[in-house]
Order: sequence, then C-alpha cells, then structure tokens
Amino acid sequence: MPGAINQVDGGTITTARGFRSGGTYAGIKTYSDDKMDVGMLLSDTPCAAAGVFTRSSIVSPSVTVNRETLAGGHAIRGLVVNSGIANAGLGEQGYIDAKEMAVLASAAMGVKPEEVLVFSTGIIGVELPMTLIKSGVDETTLSETGGNELARAMMTTDTHPKEVGVTVDIGGTDVHIGGVAKGSGMIHPNMATMLCFVATDAAIDQGLLRTMLPEVADYSLNMLTIDGDSSTNDSLVVLANGAAGNATITAGTPEAEAFKAGLLECCVQLTRKLARDGEGATHLLVVEVTGARTSEDARTAARTIASSLLVKSAVYGADPNWGRLLAALGRSQAEAVEEKIDLFINGVCIMEAGKPIPFHRDAVVALMRGDEVTFRIALNLGDADATAWGCDLTEEYVVINSAYTT
Amino acid sequence: MPGAINQVDGGTITTARGFRSGGTYAGIKTYSDDKMDVGMLLSDTPCAAAGVFTRSSIVSPSVTVNRETLAGGHAIRGLVVNSGIANAGLGEQGYIDAKEMAVLASAAMGVKPEEVLVFSTGIIGVELPMTLIKSGVDETTLSETGGNELARAMMTTDTHPKEVGVTVDIGGTDVHIGGVAKGSGMIHPNMATMLCFVATDAAIDQGLLRTMLPEVADYSLNMLTIDGDSSTNDSLVVLANGAAGNATITAGTPEAEAFKAGLLECCVQLTRKLARDGEGATHLLVVEVTGARTSEDARTAARTIASSLLVKSAVYGADPNWGRLLAALGRSQAEAVEEKIDLFINGVCIMEAGKPIPFHRDAVVALMRGDEVTFRIALNLGDADATAWGCDLTEEYVVINSAYTT
Repeated sequence: MPGAINQVDGGTITTARGFRSGGTYAGIKTYSDDKMDVGMLLSDTPCAAAGVFTRSSIVSPSVTVNRETLAGGHAIRGLVVNSGIANAGLGEQGYIDAKEMAVLASAAMGVKPEEVLVFSTGIIGVELPMTLIKSGVDETTLSETGGNELARAMMTTDTHPKEVGVTVDIGGTDVHIGGVAKGSGMIHPNMATMLCFVATDAAIDQGLLRTMLPEVADYSLNMLTIDGDSSTNDSLVVLANGAAGNATITAGTPEAEAFKAGLLECCVQLTRKLARDGEGATHLLVVEVTGARTSEDARTAARTIASSLLVKSAVYGADPNWGRLLAALGRSQAEAVEEKIDLFINGVCIMEAGKPIPFHRDAVVALMRGDEVTFRIALNLGDADATAWGCDLTEEYVVINSAYTT
Repeated sequence: MPGAINQVDGGTITTARGFRSGGTYAGIKTYSDDKMDVGMLLSDTPCAAAGVFTRSSIVSPSVTVNRETLAGGHAIRGLVVNSGIANAGLGEQGYIDAKEMAVLASAAMGVKPEEVLVFSTGIIGVELPMTLIKSGVDETTLSETGGNELARAMMTTDTHPKEVGVTVDIGGTDVHIGGVAKGSGMIHPNMATMLCFVATDAAIDQGLLRTMLPEVADYSLNMLTIDGDSSTNDSLVVLANGAAGNATITAGTPEAEAFKAGLLECCVQLTRKLARDGEGATHLLVVEVTGARTSEDARTAARTIASSLLVKSAVYGADPNWGRLLAALGRSQAEAVEEKIDLFINGVCIMEAGKPIPFHRDAVVALMRGDEVTFRIALNLGDADATAWGCDLTEEYVVINSAYTT
C-alpha cells in the first residue's frame, strides 16, 4: 500500500541498499573487548545530503567543516566518526584536524575529501590523535552488514548501540531508511551531543531533503532532552543514494509526504532509544501536550516538563507528584489556563479542568514503576500537539558526570 | 560616611526597627523538635511596600491575592506565611483559602486583612488546613527579636534558616535593612520556590521602592539557580516603615543610590545563603561573566552556565572539566567569540584567547574541593558583567526529590 511503513527486524543504517559501513578500535577510548572508536559509512554512488547541526554559538570545527562541505555543492559519498574526543575548544588546530580527518577517511574509502562528512564526540579540549585516526580509518573494513559496527564506534557513555531500519512504499517501490545514533548525556532540544546518521536508498531531490529534515528534527530529535545541555558537536545527517530505483521524490507530492513519514518514524524510534539510554536512566519519560493554541506552545511545554529536574526526580521515585508538572508547565510560558487543564499519568486522569481528582495512589505508583512513564497534559485551548522524550534523573547520572574526565 | 554599608552581627528581618515577628508549629509539616510552620511579621506603623513575584503562568492564588493587595493602595502592615503546603493547583478553593488566611492573620495581629500579605510554600495540590492555620496565627507570639522564628517557619527542605541584616548610612542616619529567605529546591531565575522577605526602617517613597526592587532582584535573587525549576509561589517583598526617622528617600538622589546598594547587599547575601543550601548541595557555585556586549548577554550566560547539570556535576566531583563551561556558554546564545574567551577556575587561568593553557590539574582539583567554586568567563567583547549563584548537583538532590511526597 502506498505510504505503508514497515519495521525491519534488526534494522540499522546498512538496511539502506548500496551503503557499507564498519568500525574499529583505534585506541582513542579506554579499551574494552567490545569497544570501537572509529567508524565510517560509504555509499556506492553519490548521495543527496542534508544536515541539521547544533545551534550553539560555540561549535566544534567538525561541524563547521560539515556545514562548508554541505554548502559546497559536492555530492556526498560517506562519513567518518570518532568517539572519545569531541575536537572542540582547541582553537585553530581543531579545524585543521577536522579537515585532515576528511582527507584520511576519503583516502581510505577511495573518494574525495569534499565528499566526506566528519564527526567527533567525546571530551572537549583534547586534541584529536591524528595518527590513531589514520590507523583507525585504514583498518576499518566496510561491509553491507556493518551498521552495527558504526553504531558501536559512535558510542561514548551509551550503554548499547542505537539502530533502526524501516521500509516505506514509495509508488510501489519499497525504499529503505536506516539509522544509527548515539547519546547519552548533554542531550537537549536543538541537537545536544547527539550524533544521528540516517541513510536511505530512496531517490529524492536534495532541495526537498534539506527542507524536510529540519521539520522532521523538530518533531523527533529536537524533542529529546536528557539533561538540558546542548553540545558543540550535535548533528543529524541524512544521505540518500537512490539505489532503490524509485522515481525521484519531489516536493508537494504524496511520495514526499510518505517519505517524510518514514523518515520521521525512523528518527522518532532513534529518539526513544536515546531517551531510554540517557545517562543513568531507569525510565523512559514521554510527555504529550495536546490542545495547545500553537505548535510552538505545545513543543515548549512538552520540552520544559520533560527537562524539569523535579519532574525527572519524581519519575525516578515513581512519585505521582503532579504539582511539579503544573509548575514546569507554568514556567514554560506556553499559554495555559489552569481551569482547563486535564492531567494523565500513564492514562490515569489525575486532574480534570484544573481540579485534582482522587486517584488510587498505589495503582499509579505501580504504573510508574514500569519501564515507561507517560504524562499527558491536555491544555484544551486549541489543536496543536507535541511529544517530548526524556528520562528520569538518578543518582547514577550524578556519579557518571561528576567524574567523567578523572 | 554617607552610603556606608555595615553588617549587623546576627542580623535578621527584625534588625529593622519597628518590626516584630514570630513563628509557631501548627502541625502542617511533620513534627520535629525545632520545626515551625506558621510565621508572621508586623510593623508598628504602615509601610511602603513592593513585591516581585513568579513569572510562571500558573501561580498560587496566594500570589494573586498579594498582587491584588499591593495594587489596592492600602499601606501594608505585615505578612503571614506557612510552610509545608503551597496552596497551589487547587482551583478556586486556593483563592478562598488565601483570602481567609489574610483574614485570620490580620485578626491575630489587630490589623485589616487588606494590610496583610500571604505566602505559602511546600507541596502543590493539597488544600491548606485552615483550622491549623488559624491556631497557628493565634498562637504566634510576635517580638522584636523574632526574626529567627519567622525564618524557621518558612523552611521546607532548607537545612537551616537564612537571615541577614545590614545598616546603611542615609544622610547621617543609620537605617536598617534585614531579611529572611527560604529555598531550597525548585529555584531558578525569575523567582523559583523562593520566598524572601525584607524589612527596613528607612523612610522611602513607595513608587521608588517599586521601581528599585525588580532591578535589585535582577542582580541577586533572579541570578540564583538551584535546579532550573521555578515555582508557582516565588516572591520577594520589601516593607519599609520609616522608623529610622530619615528624610524620605526619593528618586534620583544619592540617598536612593545608597539605599539601593544596601538593599542589593542584603539580597545578594541571602542569594548566596540560598545557593549554598540548595537541595543536596556540597559547594556554592559562583559564575562570573565579564566583558559581555550587553547586560542581558552577561546575565544569560552566567545563569545558563550555573544551571548546567553537567557543570554542576563537575563541581560536585571537583572536576575541572572546562569544556562543559564552553558548551553551556555556547548554548546560552549570549554573544561569544571563541578566540577571545579567557576562563578561570577559582582564579586560575585555564584558557586564554580561546586556547587551553596547561595548568596544574591537582592544584585546581584541590581548589575545587573547597566550599566555593568560582568560574570566571571573560568574553572580552564589551563592558557588561553579571554573576550567577548556584550549587553542585549531588546524589543527595536526587534522593531528596525522588521521594518528597512519599
């Protein structure tokens, strides 16, 4: 059926046809048996490409290089990533190293430097060990089943790789969309240290892809918050190589809508995986705001609630302390009228028209002890909805982040 | 010397002449030997009054009642506060109870309801027990040395009362300014659950006091952040009764500047005490931003850095992870040029003109293990400065807030 989206079991970025990837351990991160720290992705053919990057005013030169590369008009063939070191806060050397990393990876992959995007994630203020980067890219073996290696090579404090693959029926052709992502702290709306790479074998107009991607990000990765911190390196990129053989998707068509839905599905699934693996997290937190006057109100309210430390602490303690939802909603500056608000915790109504209603506390606590806690806030003012994803705040988060460099 | 500010040993709100206060235990909070939960302040004579309140769109009706009272044109005689219950999230009943609380307190103090401000702090969504409030105000004994009791009666998760007193030489007369405040979670710029009461025996024009107070708040309590959450109840009020006998202070005079400096000193001292006693805090965090292009940039940058969870976690771990300062600065959207930034940790320069400079790591870690950690970020773009105060993020914060209602 046109537009039908299907999940691919064990899907990953190389679910998309005509892409190969791989990773290796180059010695940048502390060694462990399963660890990788350099990865690459290569398309057999040139790709349409789009990127969304951190809005921080202090960015890694890797981001700067990618912005230049994407503006340069070259078709993109692939990307390289290292984890362990962010290549940020280094003055001019960081820019030199980012350019050099593209040169090294392109040589290893047999393409041109201006066809390769570069990504780094990890600690700020330490120079990239270029010798290790070189040996890493030289030793990486690319394969059509290498998505998992790329996903592992991106990880910093992530406890497991994040991968997803879906197919979308575009005019009778199943196109594949696959992605990998890494978190897991310093994540907040506007691309926090979050790297997300999506590959698709769809043929799609590059201009359309570049218009579509920020819109998709605004309802997926930009609604993810772990700790309110954004980073210097956050990036979401999509490469589309056309290997599926569909007629090129252009703006204003049903095919464009269908592809956008598939891309959104892929990004939302990755967003949920990132949230669930937030540093120290024990619960996935989902905040749904409905009936806002404007989309911006819905998005702001959902994100503010999902990033409230008090809300996050209450989720950790399975404490139905809904006053904190109201307080966070109030400070979000989204339009809200107290007498119109309904609140639900995992489907149980606990406030109606601004008045608390008696609920079976033990039952709600038991629901909140599950894997996933969903707060729904119905503002009943308009028809704009938004969902934000986050996680609880735990002692473990503090432990992880109080001694990260030591 | 005109304008000289002197600290009053053991200073508190009743350091100001002509004010009496007291507190009692009415049974609203769980009992402990030293606990109080209802307090009052009474001036012998009518006061000029000013208030700054939460900017949340969802406010406690107590705040609404105070806004109405201050707009009503009555001279203010005193205030009443309870801790344990916030009187918020209750629909219309909260408004009725806030009005009733003013009636009960005014009767106990022998003044009119419209001369009394009302404050509540604590859990949201539970109705005020008006019988307990009534017995509390009836049992409270007011005295000229009762500031400490008022400070204790406001406390929620605070570990100790916050009090300060100063004198300021206004045209040869020593006027007294004293204050009490309570935190200690849900504190953030724009008046988070923070109550701060200031009394002064200065004679000052009420219009001037109302112009001055928001400006003072913007460089003291509005630069305080514990956990990024604002509350429905946050309030800063000043009562001025003129008992010092100075010529009434009017706008545009050296006396107005001198009084403003004294009021700021009082509020900054309370801000520091609140930050140091943030929930679970083990360090006072001070973030100084200098050389910003605009005041707004300086304030935004300082607050964003002081409220970064990653920065706060690093302070807890005495970890000089300055990359997190840069990342927080970047996302603050304050204008910053990486190549111009100098960074200092407790006076030690660790970055100059955007480049990390080698520093003796062990020495900086040792400095950070002290009571107070100061980050100074010199933007070198203009001449605007700002300071923000906060605290570290500890496992204890999570423990306190994951089981607050249970």
